[in-house]
Amino acid sequence: MRVAILAASLALSLSAQAREGMWVPQQLPEIAGPLREAGLELPPEQLANLTGDPMGAVVALGGCTASFVSPEGLVVTNHHCAYGAIQLNSTAERNLMKDGFVATERAQELSAGPNARVYVMDRITDVTDKVQAAAGDLGGIERNKALEAIQKQLIAECEEGEGYRCTLYSFFSGQTYRLFRQVEIRDVRLVYAPPGSIGAYGGDIDNWMWPRHTGDFAFYRAYVGKDGKPAAYSEDNVPYQPSQHLKLAPEGLEKGDFVMVAGYPGTTSRYALYDEFQAVADWQYPVVGQHLRNLVAIIEAAGKADADQEVKYASQVRGYHNAMKNWEGQLEGFARIDASATKRSEEQAVLAWLRGQGGKGKAGLEAHAKLVALAAETRETRERDLVLAQIANGGLLGNLRMLHRLAIESARPDAERSPGYQQRDLPRSQGAVQQLERRYHPAMEKQLMAYWLREYLKLPAGQRVEAIDAWLGGNDEAAISRALDATYGGTGLEGSEARMALLGADQATIESSQDPLMKLAVALHPTMKAMEDRNDARSGEQNRYRPVFLAAVQDYKRSQGKAVYPDANLSLRITYGNVQGYAPKDGVFYTPFTTLDGLVAKATGVEPFDAPKAQLDAIAAMSAEEKAAVPVNFLSDLDITGGNSGSPVLNGKGELVGLAFDGNWESVSSNWVFDPAMTRMIAVDHRYMVWVMDTVYPARHLLQEMGVR
Amino acid sequence: MRVAILAASLALSLSAQAREGMWVPQQLPEIAGPLREAGLELPPEQLANLTGDPMGAVVALGGCTASFVSPEGLVVTNHHCAYGAIQLNSTAERNLMKDGFVATERAQELSAGPNARVYVMDRITDVTDKVQAAAGDLGGIERNKALEAIQKQLIAECEEGEGYRCTLYSFFSGQTYRLFRQVEIRDVRLVYAPPGSIGAYGGDIDNWMWPRHTGDFAFYRAYVGKDGKPAAYSEDNVPYQPSQHLKLAPEGLEKGDFVMVAGYPGTTSRYALYDEFQAVADWQYPVVGQHLRNLVAIIEAAGKADADQEVKYASQVRGYHNAMKNWEGQLEGFARIDASATKRSEEQAVLAWLRGQGGKGKAGLEAHAKLVALAAETRETRERDLVLAQIANGGLLGNLRMLHRLAIESARPDAERSPGYQQRDLPRSQGAVQQLERRYHPAMEKQLMAYWLREYLKLPAGQRVEAIDAWLGGNDEAAISRALDATYGGTGLEGSEARMALLGADQATIESSQDPLMKLAVALHPTMKAMEDRNDARSGEQNRYRPVFLAAVQDYKRSQGKAVYPDANLSLRITYGNVQGYAPKDGVFYTPFTTLDGLVAKATGVEPFDAPKAQLDAIAAMSAEEKAAVPVNFLSDLDITGGNSGSPVLNGKGELVGLAFDGNWESVSSNWVFDPAMTRMIAVDHRYMVWVMDTVYPARHLLQEMGVR
Repeated sequence: MRVAILAASLALSLSAQAREGMWVPQQLPEIAGPLREAGLELPPEQLANLTGDPMGAVVALGGCTASFVSPEGLVVTNHHCAYGAIQLNSTAERNLMKDGFVATERAQELSAGPNARVYVMDRITDVTDKVQAAAGDLGGIERNKALEAIQKQLIAECEEGEGYRCTLYSFFSGQTYRLFRQVEIRDVRLVYAPPGSIGAYGGDIDNWMWPRHTGDFAFYRAYVGKDGKPAAYSEDNVPYQPSQHLKLAPEGLEKGDFVMVAGYPGTTSRYALYDEFQAVADWQYPVVGQHLRNLVAIIEAAGKADADQEVKYASQVRGYHNAMKNWEGQLEGFARIDASATKRSEEQAVLAWLRGQGGKGKAGLEAHAKLVALAAETRETRERDLVLAQIANGGLLGNLRMLHRLAIESARPDAERSPGYQQRDLPRSQGAVQQLERRYHPAMEKQLMAYWLREYLKLPAGQRVEAIDAWLGGNDEAAISRALDATYGGTGLEGSEARMALLGADQATIESSQDPLMKLAVALHPTMKAMEDRNDARSGEQNRYRPVFLAAVQDYKRSQGKAVYPDANLSLRITYGNVQGYAPKDGVFYTPFTTLDGLVAKATGVEPFDAPKAQLDAIAAMSAEEKAAVPVNFLSDLDITGGNSGSPVLNGKGELVGLAFDGNWESVSSNWVFDPAMTRMIAVDHRYMVWVMDTVYPARHLLQEMGVR
Repeated sequence: MRVAILAASLALSLSAQAREGMWVPQQLPEIAGPLREAGLELPPEQLANLTGDPMGAVVALGGCTASFVSPEGLVVTNHHCAYGAIQLNSTAERNLMKDGFVATERAQELSAGPNARVYVMDRITDVTDKVQAAAGDLGGIERNKALEAIQKQLIAECEEGEGYRCTLYSFFSGQTYRLFRQVEIRDVRLVYAPPGSIGAYGGDIDNWMWPRHTGDFAFYRAYVGKDGKPAAYSEDNVPYQPSQHLKLAPEGLEKGDFVMVAGYPGTTSRYALYDEFQAVADWQYPVVGQHLRNLVAIIEAAGKADADQEVKYASQVRGYHNAMKNWEGQLEGFARIDASATKRSEEQAVLAWLRGQGGKGKAGLEAHAKLVALAAETRETRERDLVLAQIANGGLLGNLRMLHRLAIESARPDAERSPGYQQRDLPRSQGAVQQLERRYHPAMEKQLMAYWLREYLKLPAGQRVEAIDAWLGGNDEAAISRALDATYGGTGLEGSEARMALLGADQATIESSQDPLMKLAVALHPTMKAMEDRNDARSGEQNRYRPVFLAAVQDYKRSQGKAVYPDANLSLRITYGNVQGYAPKDGVFYTPFTTLDGLVAKATGVEPFDAPKAQLDAIAAMSAEEKAAVPVNFLSDLDITGGNSGSPVLNGKGELVGLAFDGNWESVSSNWVFDPAMTRMIAVDHRYMVWVMDTVYPARHLLQEMGVR
């Protein structure tokens, strides 16, 4: 979800030359010249050392990016990236989201939860040959299985020796494979979060928007065992001592200054086919978007009547709101730049170019035809696939289905299990089982299930599922109510202890359960597994043909002198450019920095514009000169997307000058079709962070720890 | 109404020095230096010659400003200033508002109606001594009568010799009086109006807004008798040959360039007392504003069901919408700059300064106390006064009341009649009687009357009116319906011929009328006359005390080094400054020119963003360079307000570079409290006018007449 939260934000063009590009570290020789020209003062080669200064300080959180900022394992990231940990540690009496949190000494630092992670880069290995040899000429589900097998094998080998997490990343949809090994720190603690009225100032209203005044920063600390090795949370653990940490820049940025970002952008689809793009522009964003609006209305209505439901589904609603607003922005952007026509004509140009190559272009053309057919196949059952996933994969039912699947998979040797159900995934499953209660309310789950069951009943006869029909025992609203009442009224698995008891149970035990909700979970398995198999088969076919077509696309692009870099895939990327505003429309220019005065002008006293009194008083007491020294947020033309949230923004010397936390409204469509004119990154200025920690919501011991002043 | 339509738009501050100031021509020596510094290339003395070049080309239309642009009496003004003439000449078959109008030869030029005027400046005479001698030490209604008498006398003397219209203007509320003599041209014809999709592009949505893309220009021609003297419309009339006309600048403006505007700004209240300001901020804008919203809802609902009513009340609704939006903007501006606190502290500072003057300050302090008491008196009956005026002064009933009053006044010697009912006002009264039908529908008038009668029934018992109570014969909705049905059902005065027959009838004839609506008009007279007398008495008192207090304010302001110029009063003013944008809020800058690309980006095909196909096609065919040569609208820091609409914008050489047509949203509150940071004028660029007339909705013969190319 976090990946879906942060917008597409794509870089470019200080002059006429667009800054587009999420460069993989291996491309550094290629971009060394442009980096220097843009203003990098470090030797570009220095960035190639991923465990050196400054790149070794950049870490992944899983969905967000962060960085070490002290030798004692202090980590800075976005407030919205720490949202889960803040929520987890909040109670009705002690609302950290509202009031903020400062640990004034180490003992007060709060566990961010059993699933919180800090991943520290160890090494990257190219394993393309091995993977391609394993896949050979296989097709469909067989190819997918072979890929899964080699992936597991490579990861198992890689993770030998405790404390590492390895991930296999595919670039250009299977053209290149790289194995990342990261130190997996499992004891992560919350150290500092400003009040939500600073950290989430502007809330959903300002999300993606400029001008912006959000203090979107928070601090974690990474802990390890006394032996220095990663360990689960323990009071005896000690702060991790990173090999590298970032230094805060003594000077602030100005308009035009060089900035770069290293981070873990999640997903872009700039190389998607025209047909795949259309499925998103014509169906997903408008049609699924309408479902989200309907769900939000249901959840908000219930939340108004019941504070418990409101709290439990706050995060889900926040995610929906984010997706809705993002999709809306993407649709607006698609219309603005006529993305559909661009996509079509670009693809037609590649195909024409391939046709002009004679025999050399044949493979690319055939691969394209195969991919078009796969897109058509996906389109055919998309309504049903959506409805089934929504019914079966969420909330308590989804939790039980996970336990059932785990039991099935656990009967097989670890290496042969499906991804997500191996020994290494167990802690994550435990966390999911334990934390569900915080996000589950039977009345709400029934309402949401009822919504999707109504959609289910609208499906054509041929797409109906026997297990669901049998469970419903009817085709109307009454049947839905009866089935839900009986199932949720009768289940004994609402408490996490009851579910924990089933974690590790064997398949027979679970399948003989008389719990009505578990029976439903078990009954759904064959249908859901068949759906998964169909997806896997398509995935295998895509892996076979897409690299072939994308190689053609790359050749074509290079022939046109265009930038070539792989789509974002959650792996480490570097993007660079300059601080600059933009013209969102004729007659209007967005200037690159916002000010404390602008923050005050927005303050209404009402959330999300409820700037704390201490902050307003502090600003009122400042001279114009003092205020000018504390910019709040700034714009630059860097190419980022969701997953880059929390990424350190570095100046030409590699010093920390801010944190990336959002893309602008006009950029969100750039995940599909890059808009060089309007794509901007929004970052919180480090001078604002320091000022807040010094004056408004103080944590001077942390400033000292970071070597400030 | 036109005066209320155009926003307050106040000038200032290229550097730190604000451009505030609507200078009277007599102040030219005072501002000659600053004018030269700002970039005026003409000798400033040249502007003092009000019948010379360029000032002699500037004319008043009554509510709007315009200018001669050819030796053959061609006049350019705003499309919205010609709205009445365009509407008057439109029929269901030939909608000039929608389709535009071009007279390709003189014979096709259409009469703008019997009330249309072009006023050409002849001379200005200071008559302060005469007026003050006449008023002497009189107070109350006696003073008002004396002022009316001397005004009539001065005007009568001034208008000797046919074809002149004289107006007495009071500056600083009676401190100085100047008599303006203007040639009154009564045959005004519509020559050119672009389609509404150009002339009113953006409509009410964009009104007051930036960025703006409105082609708000149209052309009239002034006609006179063959003898060269003003005459009523006649086929035999010939084009007027003005002594001066403006030349279109061969070069366009750039950011920072000097611009000046000469025109007839209507009303500002920058010298109002704090209490008077509060009556507007606390009551008029919020409370009367709500009435307007209610009326608009009524009219729009009826208009949806009946196209006839929609057309007839379109202009009224447009006016209401404009006022509502303007008042909303003023309230927003008052809040933004904390106008209430500013007003209070400024007034307190003046009072403190007066107190510090000992005996010398006594007169000012006493005058202030008197004015405060008068404001309190006005406040006491404001609800009732509003309701009565709304019932008695509008539509058909208002028209009949005017006929009745005219009969009463006509019995007295011309010089003793109330203003508006003299011989010289007769053509205007005729026009009002004849044109009512175009703006009257019995069903709508009854609905509007019912609305205000409901408000009437809410008044406290002591404020009720016998004549209305008797007519209603009850206190409920049923009584209102009965009275309205009987009165409007029974009247025979809906046709203009029947009413024209009563124009010139004597008092007895009218008062013996058995027409139920005329009986109501007659019955209301004593109450309305008493209200008028009370207002006149207060007006006399204000005339006695306000100049005394304002002299103190002026002295105080001069002691503070502040600009001193009188409030706008519909008389000729000059304002100057430079082309420049502004920052409406932190992180956002409004750039000073808009472009054809911006116009295209707004086009939705739906009114008011229904740019004509010919225009969109023409733009699509242009190169970037060609488009850059045609800015659409531009911003400058000039100090204008309603009444300035249509004012020629002149460059440093006195050449025409555009037409003022609006103030920006942030400036509308400047009519009360000047905001130096955000007050901007919006003008249409003459390059856009020429391009439209050359390419989109052609009138090349007019370009030729203006000497273009």
